[in-house]
Amino acid sequence: MATIKVHGSPYSTATMRVTATLYEKQIEFEFFNINMRNGEHKKEPFISLNPFGQVPAFEDGDLKLFESRAITQYINHEYADKGTKLTSSDSKKLAIMGVWSEVESHHFDQVASKLVWELGIKTLFGIPLDPKIVEENEAKLDSILDVYEKRLSESKYFGGDSFTLVDLHHLPSLHYLMKSQSKKLFESRPHVSAWVADITARPAWSEVLAMIPN
Amino acid sequence: MATIKVHGSPYSTATMRVTATLYEKQIEFEFFNINMRNGEHKKEPFISLNPFGQVPAFEDGDLKLFESRAITQYINHEYADKGTKLTSSDSKKLAIMGVWSEVESHHFDQVASKLVWELGIKTLFGIPLDPKIVEENEAKLDSILDVYEKRLSESKYFGGDSFTLVDLHHLPSLHYLMKSQSKKLFESRPHVSAWVADITARPAWSEVLAMIPN
Repeated sequence: MATIKVHGSPYSTATMRVTATLYEKQIEFEFFNINMRNGEHKKEPFISLNPFGQVPAFEDGDLKLFESRAITQYINHEYADKGTKLTSSDSKKLAIMGVWSEVESHHFDQVASKLVWELGIKTLFGIPLDPKIVEENEAKLDSILDVYEKRLSESKYFGGDSFTLVDLHHLPSLHYLMKSQSKKLFESRPHVSAWVADITARPAWSEVLAMIPN
Repeated sequence: MATIKVHGSPYSTATMRVTATLYEKQIEFEFFNINMRNGEHKKEPFISLNPFGQVPAFEDGDLKLFESRAITQYINHEYADKGTKLTSSDSKKLAIMGVWSEVESHHFDQVASKLVWELGIKTLFGIPLDPKIVEENEAKLDSILDVYEKRLSESKYFGGDSFTLVDLHHLPSLHYLMKSQSKKLFESRPHVSAWVADITARPAWSEVLAMIPN
């Protein structure tokens, strides 16, 4: 097995999605830090790894990938027998996982990524936030979390009885949002709140957080 | 095999993504028209099929799904032996398909859906378009199609030598955009243009278009 290489930033939610999967699967990897404040992700050599100039990029031998959720799916499929099983082998359960995976990507993340930027990254780098964007997106998140509360009252995790990639894909945004004013939206819902506490306590997730410089 | 049910609108790109997959796989289905102008997608009984109130929703026996790309993945996986093979069984090729599948969903569709709304749906229903949104999104589409032209100069289809779900997922937006001013962006690029001509000529796609009322 060739050494897996991840090119990204420890602050980036998309990068964290990939490293969380690698830690869950107990797969060693080499991390190459891309300095986004210097625009390294928009220049060569990075732009040859991802023509859209977004972190992370990923290499496994001669296979080069980008787009975080495509990378996590590949790791999960290629290294099925290693570490945590993050998927289901039952076709109908897999289909349900597929639905909630798309919900994370097309509903939750569309809103969460804007709040992470305003309340997480901008604060981290001392940039003033835009209260209108925060208000609009907190209202949208509130509606999405109503759907989440119902789902998580029927099923411990999004994919069923066990933790899967769908839950994992939420972790990076939760890291920023639970340190922000938006945490009230999660804490006011008992099933969502229990799910957040459960998945953020995973040992693999601590390893991802340990990569962030103090 | 229970009768498959699709609840959607023949004008909706997400609905067309699902019916195109069913026609490619030569699977019979029953179509339930959801009248979106009357807001049927935001009310019961539809809202019980998709809590986000978006078409389509899908039923295969007691399995109920929503999110078009989750539905196409399920059909492709569950009915692997029927009709056109829309995926690869090779892990590395599947990973590359995964990358371009995410690109369609997170880059192309984010922009194309706005142009489809402005130039396709609004025109269809006589609503005035917003030229600023058109201009902004055509500029973004232009950059994305530069990446597409390069990819399609190296590979006949996004997933490799054969037509897959990744190509199929583009068809509904292409239908609207190739009838609009945005078609110049496709026609000015030889590989993109050849790919559009190829995939829009598929017999299964004609069956999807035949569902649109005259």
